[in-house]
Amino acid sequence: MMMSLHVYNTLTGKKEVFKSIAKNAVGMYVCGPTVYGEPHLGHARSSITFDVIYRYLTHLGYKVRYVRNITDVGHLEDEHNETGEDKIVKKARIEQLEPMEVAQHYTNVYRQAMHALNIIDPSIEPLATGHIPEQIETIAKIIENGLAYEVNGSVYFDVQAYVQRYHYGQLSGRVLEELLAASRADLEGTNEKKFHADFALWKKAGKDHLMQWQSPWGRGFPGWHIECTAMSSKYLGIPFDIHGGGMDLKFPHHEAEICQSLGAYDKPPVNYWLHNNMVTLNGQKMAKSKGNFITLNELFSGSHSLLQKAYSPMTIRFFILQAHYGSTIDFSNESLIAAENALTKLEESYKVLDSYSAAATSSVDEETEKEVLETVESCYEAMNDDFNTAKLIAALFGFSKIIHKLTDPVRPVQISAKSVEKLSDTYRSFWRDVLGMRPENANSEKIDDLLGILIELRQQAKDDKNYSHADLIRQKLEHLGIQLKDGKDGATSYFL
Amino acid sequence: MMMSLHVYNTLTGKKEVFKSIAKNAVGMYVCGPTVYGEPHLGHARSSITFDVIYRYLTHLGYKVRYVRNITDVGHLEDEHNETGEDKIVKKARIEQLEPMEVAQHYTNVYRQAMHALNIIDPSIEPLATGHIPEQIETIAKIIENGLAYEVNGSVYFDVQAYVQRYHYGQLSGRVLEELLAASRADLEGTNEKKFHADFALWKKAGKDHLMQWQSPWGRGFPGWHIECTAMSSKYLGIPFDIHGGGMDLKFPHHEAEICQSLGAYDKPPVNYWLHNNMVTLNGQKMAKSKGNFITLNELFSGSHSLLQKAYSPMTIRFFILQAHYGSTIDFSNESLIAAENALTKLEESYKVLDSYSAAATSSVDEETEKEVLETVESCYEAMNDDFNTAKLIAALFGFSKIIHKLTDPVRPVQISAKSVEKLSDTYRSFWRDVLGMRPENANSEKIDDLLGILIELRQQAKDDKNYSHADLIRQKLEHLGIQLKDGKDGATSYFL
Repeated sequence: MMMSLHVYNTLTGKKEVFKSIAKNAVGMYVCGPTVYGEPHLGHARSSITFDVIYRYLTHLGYKVRYVRNITDVGHLEDEHNETGEDKIVKKARIEQLEPMEVAQHYTNVYRQAMHALNIIDPSIEPLATGHIPEQIETIAKIIENGLAYEVNGSVYFDVQAYVQRYHYGQLSGRVLEELLAASRADLEGTNEKKFHADFALWKKAGKDHLMQWQSPWGRGFPGWHIECTAMSSKYLGIPFDIHGGGMDLKFPHHEAEICQSLGAYDKPPVNYWLHNNMVTLNGQKMAKSKGNFITLNELFSGSHSLLQKAYSPMTIRFFILQAHYGSTIDFSNESLIAAENALTKLEESYKVLDSYSAAATSSVDEETEKEVLETVESCYEAMNDDFNTAKLIAALFGFSKIIHKLTDPVRPVQISAKSVEKLSDTYRSFWRDVLGMRPENANSEKIDDLLGILIELRQQAKDDKNYSHADLIRQKLEHLGIQLKDGKDGATSYFL
Repeated sequence: MMMSLHVYNTLTGKKEVFKSIAKNAVGMYVCGPTVYGEPHLGHARSSITFDVIYRYLTHLGYKVRYVRNITDVGHLEDEHNETGEDKIVKKARIEQLEPMEVAQHYTNVYRQAMHALNIIDPSIEPLATGHIPEQIETIAKIIENGLAYEVNGSVYFDVQAYVQRYHYGQLSGRVLEELLAASRADLEGTNEKKFHADFALWKKAGKDHLMQWQSPWGRGFPGWHIECTAMSSKYLGIPFDIHGGGMDLKFPHHEAEICQSLGAYDKPPVNYWLHNNMVTLNGQKMAKSKGNFITLNELFSGSHSLLQKAYSPMTIRFFILQAHYGSTIDFSNESLIAAENALTKLEESYKVLDSYSAAATSSVDEETEKEVLETVESCYEAMNDDFNTAKLIAALFGFSKIIHKLTDPVRPVQISAKSVEKLSDTYRSFWRDVLGMRPENANSEKIDDLLGILIELRQQAKDDKNYSHADLIRQKLEHLGIQLKDGKDGATSYFL
């Protein structure tokens, strides 16, 4: 029997049966990018992870409202440093631009990259700057509930008051006593916070701060964490079903979201917390703030000193999906090339299957029949096991082996038309719809095919010692800017 | 001598020399779509018009900050009817969706269509719902200046107070006395407005109204006009250089923007008002609200009863640019097909020119030399004359004639390498950069080229009576799903 969907809930540290709040609908919120720089492999991993989760939930028949935000303001560079300046404003001043122009630019670049990676647009893509009133209302509620305080036009979440009523550190496992001890020495001086673990909900803006709004506490701008509480509750209600994001956001960001939701509504924000693991580069987290990262456009074009070649968006997508989202992935050219090869094999099997039709026969191979059914089941089992795309890809390689048996030129195995259909439907569903793999470029495949014919005709002419004809073909291709290069395995072509 | 840029200012009804406020920078605001339905030809005309204006200003060396908004709330269905319900909310209730989900969906469809039409993303694309505080602040300023009043939680612009200080109807030419006479009979009863020409700045929301925000006047939502005043002043300052939009927006929308800007800041919003004319269908304005419209996706796919065939995005773009933006365009299949043919000719001339190189010669044709210089000048004169793309396209056909003379197979005309370069640079600048025409699909061109070689080789085999070789090529193509069809002018191919 097919097992039901299980998800690893970071909040409990356990795999749990997934049960949505509404019967056939799921509300999912995922932390999107901060748009002050080029999207990199880290962004790709998070967006691909939750894209596949969105796709699989949809495949299971859920109507999913998927909200992924754009942080275009409010992410302080260093929150422990009270002079922390808004990252976007900083870039804007350097470039002498309106900060929203910088944010819009990188938002556009991000969206382009997401489309290249075949990521489905979320149902709602709210902007932090577009929800200032909602953020102010949420902060006001927290103050009303006695869990935040105002100092000099800034508002901080009151962690000491919070721990009287709720469990602090439930997601991240941070122990307050440790933070307490660490902070005592710290609190002398000019720090506005009453307690080290307190965090900003609203920050007073200096006169020259470009992004600022009126609030009950004077002109200022929201702290980083409050936007996600305001926007997820607005569009999904409280609690909603799934909150996703990168593992690096567990603390402080997601821990703060729990504090804010309990603080404003006396309800936890969400039932299931899902966190994707990091992409590492020589074992180090790949992130903008660490300076060791490769942008997606560099990957697509091959223009980075660490890259041996360009990698297509589908290669990147497959590379990321080869691992379970909960594991780290270490970046290397070798593993990307391996991903490219594996992807090509599965894409080719898909094509072979697409043009395969079972011969009318009564003698079906029972073992292969059984194998088909088992592999279909494996696909569901893989995805029902916390969206295990690594296992799913292994199952698809199982299909690939069956397809080889069916199309063996010497002794093809026969299965029933019904089984072929089942295999075909399942392969398409999981390869195209759930994993979201698409052919790289239908046109460039046609170009390859046509070039293949011309190269073959030329080879034949050479074999027939009809050198003038072989030369004619070479010249005609050269005229189109296509160069042929003869090697021991025949000619290869490249565009000049 | 090259004339300077002149623009037709709808405010003065005159062509004026364009002078930007800052020396090398231009601020331009254009009214974007209301995202409650599929984008249609009317949207395409406005976005293509101001895309080309943006491109030409950039070509002239201006740094342009181009703001085009998305109206995702606040456009009342019928403002004279006080029960007017927000269009987006209405759709959302029918579809049982969160209104932002509907707005996001149509925003995505709009952006896709804009990209297909090769429209450059604006520098900032602000959402109306994303600027509620800015709208509230603007309204508060107008009230403070005595030009708006609150009634039952709604706020209206006070036109009778306004006319004591400013000229009402300066853009649209509406005469207040007429409105006055018309409105007297009307003002009895439950109408909250003091005067018929007053318009809503803020509307009180009913309990069930889905899109609503807190304001100093209670919970409600902004009137339609205020968003553009709030967002243009935020990102461009007051006054800025150019305000664009469709001619149908002159009244009441743009007239209201002038009132609001003077009302809040005692300054007019903008120096130059530019309005594109409408696309008509059998002489009637093509618009969603009239029900007689063709969506862009229907045009691209040919799936509308009025369409004889599909028209590519570049055909639509060229069709619109063939007329000056100030003239109406009447839709017909004939004119679209004519546009398609004209576009093909100019694209072909461009390609011929691209691969043309002047032979080394001392005998240049002086008349043609002169013609090149004159045509280059015509391009600038056309665009400097209020962005007259119709004249510009005529000039490019002039280039096309010259290119035919240069490449005449019998008696090619010679011009200097310098003139070839000038011709080439100007053609590229105006065809690709200013008009924004791009090749429909670079890959499909390569496919055509490669197929062309194979068809030629097959024909040669047939001529040589080498029928088995001819058949081999046909078979190989068939295997790829490409069918050859022999006709009296040789074979043509099509994909199955």
